[in-house]
Amino acid sequence: MRKKALYTNDPHIQALAQIVGEEAILYRKEDLIAYDCDGFTVHRHLPKAVVFPKHTAEVAAVVKYCHEHDLPFLARGAGTGLSGGAIPLNGEVVISLVRMKRLISVDLENRRAVVEPGFVNLKLTNSVANRGYYYAPDPSSQYCCTIGGNVAENAGGAHCLKYGVTTNHILGLEVVLPNGEMIEIGENGILDPPGYDLLGLLTGSEGTLGIVTKITVRILKSPEAKQTVLAYFDRVNDASQTVSDIISAGIVPAALEMMDQTAIEAVEAAAFPVGHPNDIEALLLIEVDGISAGIDEQIEEILHICRTRNVREVKVAQDEQERAKWWANRKTGFGAMGAISPDYLVQDGVIPRSKLPEVLQQIQQISEKYGLRIANIFHAGDGNLHPLVLFDSEKPGETEKALAAGSECLQACAAVGGSITGEHGVGIEKKEEMRFIFTDEEITAQTNIRDVFNRKNLLNAGKLFPTPGRCVEVKRA
Amino acid sequence: MRKKALYTNDPHIQALAQIVGEEAILYRKEDLIAYDCDGFTVHRHLPKAVVFPKHTAEVAAVVKYCHEHDLPFLARGAGTGLSGGAIPLNGEVVISLVRMKRLISVDLENRRAVVEPGFVNLKLTNSVANRGYYYAPDPSSQYCCTIGGNVAENAGGAHCLKYGVTTNHILGLEVVLPNGEMIEIGENGILDPPGYDLLGLLTGSEGTLGIVTKITVRILKSPEAKQTVLAYFDRVNDASQTVSDIISAGIVPAALEMMDQTAIEAVEAAAFPVGHPNDIEALLLIEVDGISAGIDEQIEEILHICRTRNVREVKVAQDEQERAKWWANRKTGFGAMGAISPDYLVQDGVIPRSKLPEVLQQIQQISEKYGLRIANIFHAGDGNLHPLVLFDSEKPGETEKALAAGSECLQACAAVGGSITGEHGVGIEKKEEMRFIFTDEEITAQTNIRDVFNRKNLLNAGKLFPTPGRCVEVKRA
Repeated sequence: MRKKALYTNDPHIQALAQIVGEEAILYRKEDLIAYDCDGFTVHRHLPKAVVFPKHTAEVAAVVKYCHEHDLPFLARGAGTGLSGGAIPLNGEVVISLVRMKRLISVDLENRRAVVEPGFVNLKLTNSVANRGYYYAPDPSSQYCCTIGGNVAENAGGAHCLKYGVTTNHILGLEVVLPNGEMIEIGENGILDPPGYDLLGLLTGSEGTLGIVTKITVRILKSPEAKQTVLAYFDRVNDASQTVSDIISAGIVPAALEMMDQTAIEAVEAAAFPVGHPNDIEALLLIEVDGISAGIDEQIEEILHICRTRNVREVKVAQDEQERAKWWANRKTGFGAMGAISPDYLVQDGVIPRSKLPEVLQQIQQISEKYGLRIANIFHAGDGNLHPLVLFDSEKPGETEKALAAGSECLQACAAVGGSITGEHGVGIEKKEEMRFIFTDEEITAQTNIRDVFNRKNLLNAGKLFPTPGRCVEVKRA
Repeated sequence: MRKKALYTNDPHIQALAQIVGEEAILYRKEDLIAYDCDGFTVHRHLPKAVVFPKHTAEVAAVVKYCHEHDLPFLARGAGTGLSGGAIPLNGEVVISLVRMKRLISVDLENRRAVVEPGFVNLKLTNSVANRGYYYAPDPSSQYCCTIGGNVAENAGGAHCLKYGVTTNHILGLEVVLPNGEMIEIGENGILDPPGYDLLGLLTGSEGTLGIVTKITVRILKSPEAKQTVLAYFDRVNDASQTVSDIISAGIVPAALEMMDQTAIEAVEAAAFPVGHPNDIEALLLIEVDGISAGIDEQIEEILHICRTRNVREVKVAQDEQERAKWWANRKTGFGAMGAISPDYLVQDGVIPRSKLPEVLQQIQQISEKYGLRIANIFHAGDGNLHPLVLFDSEKPGETEKALAAGSECLQACAAVGGSITGEHGVGIEKKEEMRFIFTDEEITAQTNIRDVFNRKNLLNAGKLFPTPGRCVEVKRA
């Protein structure tokens, strides 16, 4: 950021500039516009200002100032979140953590690393890979999303089936509370620390309980071997059944991904085509990893299961290059929708694995009802669906139709005993849908906790929980 | 329980008997005496009464009654807890959950089971073993402890190194809140449910936030193969170094246990001797499990590492009978102390694995300082130490010395960046030691949460957190 003079008489801007430095604050409309939304682009609001603290003390000072002057504020990482958690709904002071991006330490003997919140997810694996280690949570945005944002959203990823989501890999946090006080929780990587599980409580709290300024994460030994299988199915039901059979056989794949026909059309039309046939109903991407010894037997069993479920074609990646190609095709899948539709809305429901065929059927019916195509690219192994509702925001009423169709997909998930979000968070997008799965008492138990941390409700207000009094039809499994 | 008439005019006892039935309440001193402590026998207090509800509605009605009449109350499972969490410090109404012991359902396809809180841990594995499944958390008391108690304490066990502690296996809870309201959280086994992680918050909250009345747990496919290694070392440092080397080699053993010389003396003098030599400084019990294919190679590597670290003798269990014998010897290790000492106090510290030799050395010094023998039987793989302080409560002042020695062991753990409890909980025993690892702000953040749930502080008061104002020297890593 270049040095510049301050062209404003706003005393709050001046005070904040005193804290972080004049070169580390944005306040003019033309600068703020880049911060009016995150990966959820349906709502846009301008922040009051954006500050770029360099260390925890600056974060704490900004928070203290906001707290004392009743200024709403929120934290932001790379802004890749998909549910609007970083959108300044109330004209917040946005505390951008992108300058706090150091890898503070790596302790291989005890398998942990300490990072600042603005450290990019994939960089951590890149930093320890040459010594045979990696960081497991791998959201598709891992090449640019930050670990601080991952903590806020309890981010998942393709390999969470075997390795768990972010919360399973966070060992400690330094947190600035909404009043500017600082606490450290579980900082030493203890498996089951005493007292309440504040670490779990903060992880996935979507930036409503505090601002994370330092993170101790678990790093894992890289698996000795990996094998990846690609399987094409004429019938989506056969693919679903294959997923169940693999899990029932006692195999725990590192990843077990599914794409349906519309998704395949999109990824083949976009940046990383791999030549998938255009007339199959579904493909599975299945990866196993671990010590070399057992891998071949597991692959044999997976191939056998695919064949008993009428697979059209199934192949094992011949080398790392082929494997990487298949994964690039999968991981850029959401963006690929741009190749076949002007706009798309990603949804993020979860269902018990056994309900997969039934819910995919319902999503198809919702697609027909609204006259909007819905693609499905998802983590089939753990029942985490991602219906992508394709629409054109320039056609009057179509955005609203897409939002309604997305919400109905979530209702279908909730109705079979599932959930309204697996890894993208609630944010603004799904806060009314919280009522699909929580009673008033259950929501109150949560907002009571928020109010203890966030007494003035200045930190990221209006997110995560439904608007009190607004009524949405409640359907429980 | 036999039917009996009520011999009391106490209106509260009469009202509680109305709720649960006259045959399901104890209130006479001779009956109450069995409930004056749990596995932590240093403190004893008589409850006001013990009630035995049969289902959630009765639990809720008892809680509501206590809440309305300002009667302190707490929940109790099998009473095997080791930190005093179920001791009725304030003359509580004890809500015993032993009659709520049904296995409600098993859903193999989605890998989960629903149990009542009084269901015994090991019975779950026994119920699904013939279909090839098991429940992973295996505290040494698993043959009698209840899953409700496991949730309260976030219980661990020998196999938690690979499989995680109780919190990693709990998918849903039905909870009666301290005011008698009922909530369900995460009831459908969703990996990353939206909102705050109440499931994590309740698990390990030591009965201070609510009473769990129904539990959905994860069940796992039984590993195809298991192999167990027993290794004897002349030097405890070689054993410690072997632990580090195994983990560094990328092997994740299912269990990696250590016993020192004093512990070996005790287990050989007690119920399940296996003929360990009496002149070794340490033994390791190492188990690997998984698919058959890779097991032999892992065992070879473990044997190789043991040999490079000067093992005196190392052997692989030849059959399930030999394996079971080794484990029985290990799992009854705490009780075995009775064979060499009138009394013993179990401690439960956690340290970064790399600090093992240093802290074992310090425990030896503490033993010499107090003139009390200290045995060590512990989960070496995850750095969870269990120093067992041997003493004689009939010798004046020796109980106090044992408590002080135990506390110093925890201080040594905290000083190297560890923790004061790995799996036994804080309860009464270690509440002042919470200050070794938490600042006032960090404790307040937790008691604020407690006060939100437990506004009147009637539920299990005086546990888990230090007494306000009482000062203990704070030493942080």
